[in-house]
Amino acid sequence: MRRFVIVGHRASTTGDFKLDDICGGAGRLDVLIRCINSSFFLSHSLRRDVEAYLILQGGDDAPKTLRFKGDELRYLNPDERSTASLMRNALLKKLSDSEIKASPGIYVSRRGLRDVLSSLSESGEIVYLKEEGEDIRRTELPEDIVFVLGDDRDLSEEEEQALKEHADRSLCLGPISYHSDHCITIAHNEMDRRV
Amino acid sequence: MRRFVIVGHRASTTGDFKLDDICGGAGRLDVLIRCINSSFFLSHSLRRDVEAYLILQGGDDAPKTLRFKGDELRYLNPDERSTASLMRNALLKKLSDSEIKASPGIYVSRRGLRDVLSSLSESGEIVYLKEEGEDIRRTELPEDIVFVLGDDRDLSEEEEQALKEHADRSLCLGPISYHSDHCITIAHNEMDRRV
Repeated sequence: MRRFVIVGHRASTTGDFKLDDICGGAGRLDVLIRCINSSFFLSHSLRRDVEAYLILQGGDDAPKTLRFKGDELRYLNPDERSTASLMRNALLKKLSDSEIKASPGIYVSRRGLRDVLSSLSESGEIVYLKEEGEDIRRTELPEDIVFVLGDDRDLSEEEEQALKEHADRSLCLGPISYHSDHCITIAHNEMDRRV
Repeated sequence: MRRFVIVGHRASTTGDFKLDDICGGAGRLDVLIRCINSSFFLSHSLRRDVEAYLILQGGDDAPKTLRFKGDELRYLNPDERSTASLMRNALLKKLSDSEIKASPGIYVSRRGLRDVLSSLSESGEIVYLKEEGEDIRRTELPEDIVFVLGDDRDLSEEEEQALKEHADRSLCLGPISYHSDHCITIAHNEMDRRV
C-alpha cells in the first residue's frame, strides 16, 4: 500500500475557519487539500489502496492528525471547498485519546508526526521526499511505502530528526522543486509504472 | 516554450457564476482551475516559460478562450477560489473580435479550439495527451511543444478531428488514466528532466 504523510505546519486544528478562507484563516489548509486530491483521484475513480495522513500543527488544539483511508472514502470530491468542508467536520468532533471516525474513510486523532511515524514503522519503508534525495526513477521502490513531505514549508530540523529515526532514504522527483500535491502526483506516476 | 491547451466542454463563458459553485454552476471550471495551478506553480515561484489556453465551451456566450501567459502573470495564487475570481473577471469583460487583456498575464478572446490550434501551428509540435498514445518517457520531446487535453471529458470526435489536422502524435503518461491537472504535472516533470 502507498501512504503519504504531509506535515501542515500551521494548518488549523480547531475547525473554526471559513470555507472561503482556507488559505488564510485555516493556515494554508488549501495545500493539504490539494495533497488529498492528488493522493486519491484518478480519472473517474478513487485510488482505494492509498492512505493519506495530514499532520495539523496550527491553532489552539494542535497537534491533530486526519487520516484518509482510500478503501472507505465516500463524499470526496475533487474541488477544494468540499474537501475543506469534510475536514472541518472532522476537526469539530469531540476527541478523547483514541482515533475516531468523522465520516466514511476520514479519521481524526490527537496524534502528531512522531506518533504517526511510529505507528507506520511496520507498514512499509518510510522515505522522505526532498530535493536533495536519490532520484526516484533510479532506485528500488517497495510496494509498501510511506512518503513523507512538508506542506508549503520544508520539515523543520526537529521534524527531520524525528523522521530520520524511521527513514533511511530521501528521494527526489526531478531537477526542480515542486508543490507538495504535485510531488504526490509524480510519486504516484512512478509507482504506477512499477506495478 | 511549453504550452497547454485544455478543452472545457461545459465551462462557463459568461462569468455569472458564484465563487462557491465553480463545480456546478460554472460547468466544472474547477477542473480548468486546477490545470492552471499545475501549469504554472512551482515551489515558491511560477513557471514563466509556459502558456496555458482554456477553451471554454459552456454557457450562452461560447466559445471563449482564456490565455494565461506565464511571463506576465500576476495575482495568481494556488487556491481554486482566487483563480476562479481572476477567470470570472476576464469573462465579464466586453469583447469584440480581438483578444483583450483582462489582467496581467490573462487574456480573453472569442476563439474556439480550431482557432487556437491554427494560431499555434507554428509554435512547436502539437501533441495529444491521451491514454492510447506513445509513452512520453520513450519518445523525443521538442523544447517547443503544445500539449492538448480534455477536462473531465475526453475530446469529442469532432474535436479530435480538428486536432488531427495539427497533431501527428498522441502521448500517454502511464498505465492509468489521470485527472487533467495531474497529466500536466507529469508532462512538466518529464520535460523538466529533459532540459
